Amino acid sequence: MKFLKGTTEAILSELKSIKSTTDTATIETQVKAIIQQVKANGDKAVLHFTEQFDKVSLSELRVSDDEITTALNQVDAPFLEVLQQAKANIESFHLKQKQHAFLDNEKRGVIRGQLIRPLATVGVYVPGGTAAYPSSVLMNVLPAKIAGVERIVMITPPSENGINPHVLAAAQIAGVDEIYQVGGAQGIAALAYGTESIPKVDKIVGPGNIYVATAKREVFGLVDIDMIAGPSEIVVLADDSANPSFIAADLLSQAEHDTLSRAILITTSEKIAKETETQIYAQLEKLPRKAIAAESIRSEGKIILAQNQADMFEIMNEIAPEHLEVQLENPMNYLHEIKNAGSIFLGSYASEPLGDYFAGPNHVLPTSGTAKFFSPLGVEDFTKRSSFISYTKEALAKEKDAIILLAKKEGLDAHAKAIQIRFEEEK
Amino acid sequence: MKFLKGTTEAILSELKSIKSTTDTATIETQVKAIIQQVKANGDKAVLHFTEQFDKVSLSELRVSDDEITTALNQVDAPFLEVLQQAKANIESFHLKQKQHAFLDNEKRGVIRGQLIRPLATVGVYVPGGTAAYPSSVLMNVLPAKIAGVERIVMITPPSENGINPHVLAAAQIAGVDEIYQVGGAQGIAALAYGTESIPKVDKIVGPGNIYVATAKREVFGLVDIDMIAGPSEIVVLADDSANPSFIAADLLSQAEHDTLSRAILITTSEKIAKETETQIYAQLEKLPRKAIAAESIRSEGKIILAQNQADMFEIMNEIAPEHLEVQLENPMNYLHEIKNAGSIFLGSYASEPLGDYFAGPNHVLPTSGTAKFFSPLGVEDFTKRSSFISYTKEALAKEKDAIILLAKKEGLDAHAKAIQIRFEEEK
Repeated sequence: MKFLKGTTEAILSELKSIKSTTDTATIETQVKAIIQQVKANGDKAVLHFTEQFDKVSLSELRVSDDEITTALNQVDAPFLEVLQQAKANIESFHLKQKQHAFLDNEKRGVIRGQLIRPLATVGVYVPGGTAAYPSSVLMNVLPAKIAGVERIVMITPPSENGINPHVLAAAQIAGVDEIYQVGGAQGIAALAYGTESIPKVDKIVGPGNIYVATAKREVFGLVDIDMIAGPSEIVVLADDSANPSFIAADLLSQAEHDTLSRAILITTSEKIAKETETQIYAQLEKLPRKAIAAESIRSEGKIILAQNQADMFEIMNEIAPEHLEVQLENPMNYLHEIKNAGSIFLGSYASEPLGDYFAGPNHVLPTSGTAKFFSPLGVEDFTKRSSFISYTKEALAKEKDAIILLAKKEGLDAHAKAIQIRFEEEK
Repeated sequence: MKFLKGTTEAILSELKSIKSTTDTATIETQVKAIIQQVKANGDKAVLHFTEQFDKVSLSELRVSDDEITTALNQVDAPFLEVLQQAKANIESFHLKQKQHAFLDNEKRGVIRGQLIRPLATVGVYVPGGTAAYPSSVLMNVLPAKIAGVERIVMITPPSENGINPHVLAAAQIAGVDEIYQVGGAQGIAALAYGTESIPKVDKIVGPGNIYVATAKREVFGLVDIDMIAGPSEIVVLADDSANPSFIAADLLSQAEHDTLSRAILITTSEKIAKETETQIYAQLEKLPRKAIAAESIRSEGKIILAQNQADMFEIMNEIAPEHLEVQLENPMNYLHEIKNAGSIFLGSYASEPLGDYFAGPNHVLPTSGTAKFFSPLGVEDFTKRSSFISYTKEALAKEKDAIILLAKKEGLDAHAKAIQIRFEEEK
């Protein structure tokens, strides 16, 4: 756990200097080749790459209803019950995000407005192996359902033992329409171009490894994508009122995800800084995922001692964390100071895992400082806007000279002509 | 002008087969090299590439207040007046897009909500030469202003004769904070990484040539970008009630932009199809930009005779046009049929140039079929969302078992522990 203190400038430059950069050129070349193959040869290429990378030979890409039913029978009732509760919370939160069309008719003869339409088809990528999280299925699918997406296609890498039954249960509860067992860049390419069995989608969402992320970046524009996800991160802001054992537990819940996860405490209190550090090493000992969490804490963990509250917020906003816990007295008072953060947890009892699983806000969040410009996944990520106008001849007559002047100034005479022709004598 | 008729399936497959694909590998390599240089050497690299590509040797990248004042004095008053009117219309429309924070307190002890925050810094790219459109400056900058962006930076390629005064006037009226004379991939790289003179921004918007577009795609993730813009396009839907000379003029206003612009009429009326074609060739003769428009009409123009109204909408939705004119009787009745279109013009007097310049909805629109999932540029493109939650100990107590069960099922014990620790006896 690295300990930083001093001026905000010094701390920020220190934080920057440790940011790692990966050379992705080789991966990019591989991924482009895979995409080209899937584009050209469809299912045949998909099956070929599945055999090559996943070591599974499939006769059918689609997961059958029988397989889904069998999987559901393996899942215990309390788990299904909890998924249903989580679903209800996620739905009630996301329903509030729903945007509505508007129409403006303030000027006689002029109607202006905006429509909100759902995307038609969405593809959800669900990673395989230990990164297969049922909660992620709910978080990616439910906003699309609320947006009104008619066809939700899930893809996930195949495995010898079949697909994780908890993931299949979550897909069923969330309302996924079709599931295909294909992963990696070949899965993303299949969704972007469509194959004989897998439909072309309008947007691809969901996390994945570097091959999946690179493939998503490659097909961006042909389809929409959610975001470029990096390692997960948490910043905890704490003052003397905070509880070091809570802070340590929350930092560790982030650290156990991945050795690259970043867990950062920023505090104005030397006492809290020291006690949290002690707590971290004590709690670490008892964790089943100790190896991962310890490496994350060692290489990416930071305790930052800020000179004052203003510095604390400045450093945090510059980091722009995915998750932000505000363990300060009267935390609601500081909402105004928070400019850049994906998901905000206010007070001692809004522990990050509560948001990860249950409270309702989405857990698909902007990482690696992108909360400066990206948002949590939400209903509007599954809709698009269209504007519309309607003018009567009389309304257009009032504006025609202005439009013609602008068009001529831009050297676009056909634009001017399109207006003029509507007021020429009929021949 | 190509004439298509038959089944929807046949028409759609014909439309697909003529889509051109560009091999962008070489450009990508060049652009990556430029970006690396600017990242490493800042202003020095920017000035070097400006000399190489724009053939201009600059001592200062920033456009001075004196230069702006001089330019403004060259612009005539009626033009400034029209820009002000356009600004008022654009503002009144975009104000209606503004999103608001929400707070939900339906359960005792539970607060959930969402904040809407402006991006801090935005970069606007304005092309040089004949593609320099004052109207585009308004369309890109005003939504950012309404969103509350504090720092709006404009870049535009330098030229021997200084920057287009009409563009500078539009920048002044729209409220741009700083202007730098730099274009191409080096300009995009400067905005993405920041240099000694040019600030790093959170998002880059605005159209540009293939180098600009490729550079934007490369830096996506490090900053946000608006969209990958392709050639401009219009689809006009018409029945017997439409006026062929209006349709022809509108199609030509699209065609004059670029030889790659796509102007498409879809009609159920053979009479309208024929008369529009005649009108197009007649009107084409009188256009100053005849060469461009004629080539666009020859290579990309289409008249599609649909078998019925349902087919007409199906073909249109598959094209997902940037601009859609509905020249049908009672056009408002067809709003429901329109699923995929950037900007919709209803009736005979809502000519496309009215929307391009004046009515208020944005003219930065999704092209090349991306209206299936992208939206017109709007206020929300310059904001980001943050979710927040606050739970009391009592509220968390009610949910703790569910969260712990989910966490354990996903094998994340530190997540479970972060909840449990809050209910353990104090030591």
